[in-house]
Amino acid sequence: MNKKPPGGQTAVLSRPPRLLAWASVAGKKEGEGPLAHTFDVVGQEDHFGAASWEKAESAMQKLALSTALKKAGLPPSALDWLLAGDLLNQCIGSAFAARDQDIPFLGLYGACSTMAESLSLAAMLLDGGFGTHAAAMTSSHFCSAERQYRTPLEYGGQRTPTAQWTVTGSGCVILGREGTGPAVTHVTVGKVVDKGIKDANNMGAAMAPAAADTILAHFRDTGRKPSDYDLVITGDLGQLGHQLLGELLRAEGLQLPHLADCGTLIYDLEGQDVHCGGSGCGCSAAVLCGLLLGGMEKGRWRRILFCGTGALLSPTSTQQGESIPAVCHGVAIEQEGQG
Amino acid sequence: MNKKPPGGQTAVLSRPPRLLAWASVAGKKEGEGPLAHTFDVVGQEDHFGAASWEKAESAMQKLALSTALKKAGLPPSALDWLLAGDLLNQCIGSAFAARDQDIPFLGLYGACSTMAESLSLAAMLLDGGFGTHAAAMTSSHFCSAERQYRTPLEYGGQRTPTAQWTVTGSGCVILGREGTGPAVTHVTVGKVVDKGIKDANNMGAAMAPAAADTILAHFRDTGRKPSDYDLVITGDLGQLGHQLLGELLRAEGLQLPHLADCGTLIYDLEGQDVHCGGSGCGCSAAVLCGLLLGGMEKGRWRRILFCGTGALLSPTSTQQGESIPAVCHGVAIEQEGQG
Repeated sequence: MNKKPPGGQTAVLSRPPRLLAWASVAGKKEGEGPLAHTFDVVGQEDHFGAASWEKAESAMQKLALSTALKKAGLPPSALDWLLAGDLLNQCIGSAFAARDQDIPFLGLYGACSTMAESLSLAAMLLDGGFGTHAAAMTSSHFCSAERQYRTPLEYGGQRTPTAQWTVTGSGCVILGREGTGPAVTHVTVGKVVDKGIKDANNMGAAMAPAAADTILAHFRDTGRKPSDYDLVITGDLGQLGHQLLGELLRAEGLQLPHLADCGTLIYDLEGQDVHCGGSGCGCSAAVLCGLLLGGMEKGRWRRILFCGTGALLSPTSTQQGESIPAVCHGVAIEQEGQG
Repeated sequence: MNKKPPGGQTAVLSRPPRLLAWASVAGKKEGEGPLAHTFDVVGQEDHFGAASWEKAESAMQKLALSTALKKAGLPPSALDWLLAGDLLNQCIGSAFAARDQDIPFLGLYGACSTMAESLSLAAMLLDGGFGTHAAAMTSSHFCSAERQYRTPLEYGGQRTPTAQWTVTGSGCVILGREGTGPAVTHVTVGKVVDKGIKDANNMGAAMAPAAADTILAHFRDTGRKPSDYDLVITGDLGQLGHQLLGELLRAEGLQLPHLADCGTLIYDLEGQDVHCGGSGCGCSAAVLCGLLLGGMEKGRWRRILFCGTGALLSPTSTQQGESIPAVCHGVAIEQEGQG
C-alpha cells in the first residue's frame, strides 16, 4: 500500500500516531502576553539559568523535553527518536540539548516550519513501523536570533513596520504508536516556493505563497472541505502574511472560515510593540504545545490543520541579493472519533 | 510489527529500498585526487557557473540531482521526497537547490553525517509505505566552509596538523521502493556523543567516539559479525580520527578487518597538502556516490556499513568555550542475494 499517493504531497497515516503529551516553555515577554496561561513553563528572565542566549535555547529545549516526558509518564529511554532543529547556525540549540540525552537523534532544519517538520517525520516513522515513541521539538530565542540574523541587541536598531518578533520559547510533543490523545492523520509536505520577495524584514510576505501552496495541496490531495477543519493555523506569517495568505487562497477559490496564525496570537499586537507579530521556530511550537493541543484536549477544536511556515534564507543569501525561498508543512491533528 | 526493536538504535527495513541511481559532483582539487575517475562530474573551476561560493554549492546539488535522475531514467516529478541538508548557515545550499524543484522538501542538519541521515530517513519513509521514490542529497564547498567556519581565504591562515580539508563536492542518491540496485537493509541512528574535545581543528577526535558508539550499537543490535561486512566506512574522521576509532573499537573488543574512512581516501594525503584528509558533507557523499556504490556495482564489495559522522558545533559554540557534540548514523547497504 502506498500511503503517499503519487502526484500529491500528502501522506495518509494508516494507523495515526497519537500525541501522548506535550510541553511548552516561554520567555518573559511571551509570559506577559495573551497566551501566558497556556504555557507549561514561563521564564522569569530569559537566560533559563544559562551563560549565553544560545545556551539558554538549549536549556529551554531540555526543559520542554523533560516536562513533556514527565506529563507522558515516560522515561527518556522510552523514546526511539528525538527529532529536533532550530534557527541557530548549525542548529546548536538542538544539538546541545540532545547531547545530554541518550536518544537516537535526527537533526532537522526547516526554519520556522521545524515544529511541523519534526511532527511530520516523527508521525511517518512511527506509522511506518519504526519504533513506538518519538519526540518532536524545536525552539527559538529573541536574543540569539537578533544577534545572529540582524544586529546586536545593544545596537538598538529600528525595526521596520513589517518586522516580526522572534519568540523566546520551545515546544516538545511526545508521539506514540499506541495510547490516547489527538492523532496525526495526514501530513502534507511542502515544496520550496520563492515568489521573489527580497525584504528579510518582511518574512510574512515571503512565506504566505508557500503556505497557500501547501494548504491548497492538502485540500486537493485529501478531497476535504474547509468545513472539515475547526481551525487551519499557520506557523508565523504575522499580521501582514496572514492577510496575504487569505487573499491568495481566495484567489484560488478556497475560503477558510477558521484561518488563524500563531504569530498573531502569541503577543498582544497593540500593546507589546511586536509590529506584525511573533516568529521563530519557538512561536508555532509554543502555541501548538499550549493553546492548540490544550484547546483540543478541552474540546475547543476537534480537527486542526497545523501549518508550519519557514523562510529558508540566511543573512549571507540576503547579502548576496537573493530572494527568500519558503516552505510550509501541514499536519492534520484530530481528536479520536471523528471520521 | 516494530521494525525498530526497543532499546536498540537500529531500524530493520522489511522490504529494503533500492538505490536506483546516484551521482557525484566534485571540485577541481578532488578531481586531481585518487578518486578522480569515480566522479560523474568534475568542475574545471569551483564556481560551477555561479556568482558566489554559496551559490556554487547549490549549483553542485542541482547538478548531482539532475545527473542522478537522468541515470535513473526518472523525471523530477517521480520523486515523492527530496531530503537534503548542508553545512552552510541555515542550510542555504540545499534550500536554494530545492527552490527550482517541484518536489516535497525535508530539510536536514546533521553536519557531515547528512548523507547518511538523508539516506536513513529516505529509506525508512519508503519502507514505511510513504511514496515510491526519494532523493537523498548533500554538499559542501571548501571556499564557503572556510569563510564561514574559519577565516576568509584571502587571510591565508595557517592550518594545524590535525585540520581536515573541506571537500568541494556533492552527492545524490535516488532511492526506490521497487527496482534494482544495492538495498538499504538496516539503519542505525546515532546518539549525540560529546567526550569533551574542544579543538575545532581536530574534528576527527571529536567524532571518533560517536562513530564508535554507533558502530558498536549496530553490531550489538543486529547480532552481525565483523566478517559480515566487506567494508565498514566512516564519513570523514580523517587520518587521526580513523586511528582513534580503531583504538576505541578494539578497546571494546571489536576488531574490524575492513575499516576505512572517506576522508582519508578522497585526497592524496601525501601530495595534496590536506593534513588529516577530507571533511564536509560533500566528502562522504561524493565517495559514496562514486567509489563505494560504483564499487558495489562492479562487485568489489557486496555489503558495506556506511557511517556518516557529523560534528555538531558552530563557531559560536566554540567561541563560548563549548566542547564538540558529534553524531554518527550507520546505513547497511547490500547487493541483492546476500542473506
